[in-house]
Amino acid sequence: MMEKFVSKITDAAGEGKKLGVEDPRRIIHSLKVGLAITLVSLFYYFDTLYQGFGVSAMWAVITVVVVFEFSVGATLGRGVNRAIATLLAGSLGVGAHRLANFLGEKLEPVFLGLSVFLVAAAVAFIRFHPKLKARYDYGLLIFILTFCLISVSGYRDDEVLKMAHKRLSTILIGSSAAVVVCSFICPVWAGEDLHNLIAGNIENLGIFLEGFGHEYFRTSDDKLLDDKASIDEYKSGLNSKGTEEYLANFAKWEPRHGRFRYRHPWDQYLKIGALVRECAYRIDALNGYLNSEMKTPAEVRARIQESCTKMSSESSLALKELALSMKAMSSSSIADPHIVNAKTAAEKLKLLLKSDMWEGTDFLEIIPAASVSSLLIEIVSSTVKIADSVRELASMAKFKNDVLKQNETDKGKVLRVPSIERSHNISIIAE
Amino acid sequence: MMEKFVSKITDAAGEGKKLGVEDPRRIIHSLKVGLAITLVSLFYYFDTLYQGFGVSAMWAVITVVVVFEFSVGATLGRGVNRAIATLLAGSLGVGAHRLANFLGEKLEPVFLGLSVFLVAAAVAFIRFHPKLKARYDYGLLIFILTFCLISVSGYRDDEVLKMAHKRLSTILIGSSAAVVVCSFICPVWAGEDLHNLIAGNIENLGIFLEGFGHEYFRTSDDKLLDDKASIDEYKSGLNSKGTEEYLANFAKWEPRHGRFRYRHPWDQYLKIGALVRECAYRIDALNGYLNSEMKTPAEVRARIQESCTKMSSESSLALKELALSMKAMSSSSIADPHIVNAKTAAEKLKLLLKSDMWEGTDFLEIIPAASVSSLLIEIVSSTVKIADSVRELASMAKFKNDVLKQNETDKGKVLRVPSIERSHNISIIAE
Repeated sequence: MMEKFVSKITDAAGEGKKLGVEDPRRIIHSLKVGLAITLVSLFYYFDTLYQGFGVSAMWAVITVVVVFEFSVGATLGRGVNRAIATLLAGSLGVGAHRLANFLGEKLEPVFLGLSVFLVAAAVAFIRFHPKLKARYDYGLLIFILTFCLISVSGYRDDEVLKMAHKRLSTILIGSSAAVVVCSFICPVWAGEDLHNLIAGNIENLGIFLEGFGHEYFRTSDDKLLDDKASIDEYKSGLNSKGTEEYLANFAKWEPRHGRFRYRHPWDQYLKIGALVRECAYRIDALNGYLNSEMKTPAEVRARIQESCTKMSSESSLALKELALSMKAMSSSSIADPHIVNAKTAAEKLKLLLKSDMWEGTDFLEIIPAASVSSLLIEIVSSTVKIADSVRELASMAKFKNDVLKQNETDKGKVLRVPSIERSHNISIIAE
Repeated sequence: MMEKFVSKITDAAGEGKKLGVEDPRRIIHSLKVGLAITLVSLFYYFDTLYQGFGVSAMWAVITVVVVFEFSVGATLGRGVNRAIATLLAGSLGVGAHRLANFLGEKLEPVFLGLSVFLVAAAVAFIRFHPKLKARYDYGLLIFILTFCLISVSGYRDDEVLKMAHKRLSTILIGSSAAVVVCSFICPVWAGEDLHNLIAGNIENLGIFLEGFGHEYFRTSDDKLLDDKASIDEYKSGLNSKGTEEYLANFAKWEPRHGRFRYRHPWDQYLKIGALVRECAYRIDALNGYLNSEMKTPAEVRARIQESCTKMSSESSLALKELALSMKAMSSSSIADPHIVNAKTAAEKLKLLLKSDMWEGTDFLEIIPAASVSSLLIEIVSSTVKIADSVRELASMAKFKNDVLKQNETDKGKVLRVPSIERSHNISIIAE
């Protein structure tokens, strides 16, 4: 019994440690939440403020608890939503209460009941609108809440206006406390995370393709890749659509920070993300052939080895350079020569496939090789699309244009003729 | 100016109508929200209840607003989370307050501040735990909230226990009102939606495959499919992972309803969903070949036409039967003969590909045909996996076993020999 309990505690501690090690910002976030709530609670605790706001002071505590989120954007979005919704619904509530007063004692409850019903139902319906839901869902909820509290409670207390004012001020205090603590102590920026997520996903594609050529074409059983797990990292990008969308929504609330401007082109990240996912699914199909039982005989594979290895390694280099320049927020075109090389290799492969060297081969045995070839050709075209959209992002967001790298861009443009190849370290192996 | 305003109003009305037509349950939901809030507001409004609860009565209104969700499961989950978290945090808060009283006037604020900080930080950290987040996130938030309110406000008022009790009772009233209105007036069951979503996604795969064979192998330009949009329905399933997961989370809160038991095997739906998505991605790749410029010459396609059309149509029939029997919640095995047929066609195709009839053909032109063939072979194996997991679901959930259909199951088992084919309406066309 005791042992079980101890082992459960140990498990929980282990899981807690894992959560903290995975992302140490989580620990900082928890401490920040504690700090913000304690600060506002102590305001509430000390007499002076209590005298002014009465029981309403607890709204400040509540606001901090519900508004404080992991990223600055999410906290700011919630805080602004809550404050503006309280202001609007409070005014409307006061108005409804005044109007009800004119109607006399009998009609008052009918009018108030009806207006609460109509406002609640209408706003509940508006919450289904996908665009409004994405940015203003919390505000709409608070709108219903405040309107009901003010208009109905107004009957109890003639000081409706005073109450609405108190609610608004305490909510402003709470929201400000949450926003200040969240953005000034080790802030977590949703935009920065989105930026790094997309760059990381691009890099993961590159890491897979770097290893793929050697793994697929190795003839013996010698293990070239001791770490299969690292090349499978791309899988994390397959399901990141939801994360990307909500990070982009939060990022839109964030002010200028670091090298991200306000109104940074966040939607472009979603576009890049979709292209990365498309490429990741092709890579996933390719990955299936690594372990497939339908493995093609070595002599068939050998014929396409050179072109395929080159396509894979050059795409890999291009994607990794794109990820690097994105991470550095520079608009370098250092990836371009690799793209040219990959395209050339694809053309070569097509020519090779057209030739007669395949006659007499068992067709069934060629299928996987053919599929791998066509997948690689598609991956090269995916890489081109990703490079284009990253370049578009760089120009939209006015990333720095390094002069040294600009020279390379020019060279890259000259090299955009498929017949000229420019080789980097890995392409030496393939040639 | 006026015209612009009028056109904006018209646009908004149009969008509202669209939201309502898309899913009429949204309108009912909005009316239910209005009703529940009005009911609780009127409680608050009339004197008798107000005398008992004082300002705390507004907690009932707030609770209804924040707890009422679209599905019964989500509402129940929130209500239970809120009630239990209030109970636990309220007790802890009262305890902390009592303890603080013993410490004397000087140490009291220090102790309270420290305990608020520790509880808030610890619970904020626990909220990062993925499993706890999925089911108890709201409860953890309310735990912080209630603990702070009770422990800190306790200093103002010696009637801490009374206040905690009031808060708990009003929250229970609000939660009950929300749950009762949500589950007894036209309830929306998350579980039922999950069930229908998965069945619909399976059906969409079938609809694509039904049209694919004819579309891909048509030699002339005559349009066999006048409705390309309907065969593209499968795409909605590509990104439904998030929806499936949260529906499953909500469904776990739901009591027995219709033919769904409490503790229905909801996780099995996630398993089926993953297999359906895997198949949908293969279908998406196949779809790419429908419009591909690399289209294979008709004579090459003609060689694989029979087997491919059969694989596609039999998989389609199997998937559609699976979707139907799932929708009807029966454990019929009416899909089995189609699976057998599809497997047979796949074997035939493999034999065909092994033969010498390909010599002298341009290899490059064969690649798309080879890819289509291998994709279809993979889709058949996906279909088998989906069928197995649906059968598993049927036995786990104890779906009704129709006697008439049981006979067919037996036949189906006999027929699971690839050499024997059993044909249904569509397979006549293919043979």
